[in-house]
Amino acid sequence: MNPITIALDGMGGDHAPEMVVRGADLARQRFPHIRFVIFGIEGRLKPLLDRCAELAKVTELHHTEDVVRAEDRPSVALRSGRASSMRMAIDAVRDGSAAAVVSAGNTGALMAMAKFVLKTMPGIDRPAIASYFPTTRGESVMLDLGANVSCDANNLFQFAVMGNVFARTVLGVLEPTVALLNVGSEDQKGGDVLREANTLLREAKLPGSYYGFVEGNDIVSGTVDVIVTDGFTGNVALKAIEGTAKLYSDFLKRAFRSSWTAGLGYILARSALNKLRVRTDPRRYNGAILLGLNGIAVKSHGGTDAFGFSNAVGVAVDMLQHGFLEKIRQDLERVSVSAASPAAAAL
Amino acid sequence: MNPITIALDGMGGDHAPEMVVRGADLARQRFPHIRFVIFGIEGRLKPLLDRCAELAKVTELHHTEDVVRAEDRPSVALRSGRASSMRMAIDAVRDGSAAAVVSAGNTGALMAMAKFVLKTMPGIDRPAIASYFPTTRGESVMLDLGANVSCDANNLFQFAVMGNVFARTVLGVLEPTVALLNVGSEDQKGGDVLREANTLLREAKLPGSYYGFVEGNDIVSGTVDVIVTDGFTGNVALKAIEGTAKLYSDFLKRAFRSSWTAGLGYILARSALNKLRVRTDPRRYNGAILLGLNGIAVKSHGGTDAFGFSNAVGVAVDMLQHGFLEKIRQDLERVSVSAASPAAAAL
Repeated sequence: MNPITIALDGMGGDHAPEMVVRGADLARQRFPHIRFVIFGIEGRLKPLLDRCAELAKVTELHHTEDVVRAEDRPSVALRSGRASSMRMAIDAVRDGSAAAVVSAGNTGALMAMAKFVLKTMPGIDRPAIASYFPTTRGESVMLDLGANVSCDANNLFQFAVMGNVFARTVLGVLEPTVALLNVGSEDQKGGDVLREANTLLREAKLPGSYYGFVEGNDIVSGTVDVIVTDGFTGNVALKAIEGTAKLYSDFLKRAFRSSWTAGLGYILARSALNKLRVRTDPRRYNGAILLGLNGIAVKSHGGTDAFGFSNAVGVAVDMLQHGFLEKIRQDLERVSVSAASPAAAAL
Repeated sequence: MNPITIALDGMGGDHAPEMVVRGADLARQRFPHIRFVIFGIEGRLKPLLDRCAELAKVTELHHTEDVVRAEDRPSVALRSGRASSMRMAIDAVRDGSAAAVVSAGNTGALMAMAKFVLKTMPGIDRPAIASYFPTTRGESVMLDLGANVSCDANNLFQFAVMGNVFARTVLGVLEPTVALLNVGSEDQKGGDVLREANTLLREAKLPGSYYGFVEGNDIVSGTVDVIVTDGFTGNVALKAIEGTAKLYSDFLKRAFRSSWTAGLGYILARSALNKLRVRTDPRRYNGAILLGLNGIAVKSHGGTDAFGFSNAVGVAVDMLQHGFLEKIRQDLERVSVSAASPAAAAL
């Protein structure tokens, strides 16, 4: 395989830069053909890299003094963070010296900078943030998760196109089912925007099938492969799901600690419970994708560890290997051709 | 205690009328001072009631031929369901022959009919649906859960007033904390409606305290006692939480069944796990409340059993015993007085 170069924001995330370097090292073991260019404070990154001899061989360090902080507003980061590790890592994708960028830093700043530097893809009005997670049936992807607090029907339609490509390329679903998130499954439910997007999607004939409306409980039950919603609802729903998963895991821990028989029960069931833990480990699903840009940008959870960060790198690698950007461009073109001349498309 | 009469829709719910009669019988055992008036098809209700001698003593049956079906549109139910068990049960509250109504039937129809018959309370522009659920710290209430897919700042403000009273009366929290659901905690997050409601709530000085914005994960972590949101977001979030709880419980069942050691572990931990199951049993939290009407109306989950239905009746009893409607009226008056003359309120 051809080597792939990934640009890393060495200073983004609660446990950076240690977590970034160790995460890169884990990713290198999984994907022997990747190379890295890491941006950040050399005095902190160099000693870490010196401890990973194999990683050092495939990594270039770029010293940057500036760092985007977690509390910086996107607009401020955009104006004054031109020499930051985050910005320089994004610039590397624009300049072609890297094929994708991964950062565990400030989400708003990353989106603002990536949008400014990489620009929105032709045919896409607004980029979106997507993520995938385990369901009863397998894995599903949801978008937007917070880039756009309000959306029109065209935005939602474009999110559906991008989510559909994501499911085909990264999740490996050949004919994905796509749905709009709503408060009921009947066609008259929800507001005008949803009803209009529903009509657009019914007519569009994306690869796979359009399911219609789904409800909140369908997100994790795996009713469909792609769930499309505005960034406000998607953000609240995703965090509500994460919070509930954590609540149940806390409740369960307390239950097993509440008596010695329960503790013994835990020991006996541990192997099965560990499998469950691995299956639902949020670190396995780390890596929110900034979709709709002329370049691949992945946002890792800020609080993740090296294992989680390596999975965010893995998402970027998957997208590159499956020609994600090219496939979105093709789909957007096909959809816009058929919208422009339905008669021609029907031939 | 003075006797309380509750009107029941005998035909609403997947397992009606059996579940309704058996649920009423369970509620009678918990609340010896309640009486029932059950509306529905006498030929089906009478034989069930005959089997519950104690319940029969405190219950009046009212024969109604019509039934609102789960698939009926609210507008259709409102127009043509005037002689239905649901409608007659609501009418009983308006006429004063019952103090509250409980139905496990079609939510949209129940809201439409209750709004039409009982009318919206002075000072409330739109009624809301509220529900409470277990959190890491105790119990919280969230509204609106689907009555209003879009809301303005005043609607959200009024929901906060009603949720605050609910937490004080039904959950027994003397000084509730109230928050608006948003995609971040900073004051500049979200759209105009949320920012305006945020300002209204900061200035209003409701009993307890106003927390500001919370995010999706705060719903179940119990960050605040009352979570206020529009009916679209609330509906999606609640169903996402319910879906995730079910997903984890399914995953757990599968894990315990996956090997004989895991099965043995389950047996040892069973008592602790049962406590957890009881604590998170959705039937314990059954009963969504239609708030903002001149009367108490509780919606039970359609798929619940007798135990769940008895808890929905329990919610109605709690609200009656704590003078819920009176307290909302007082709070609305105080808030509007202080809004009208801030100088007078400050004296």
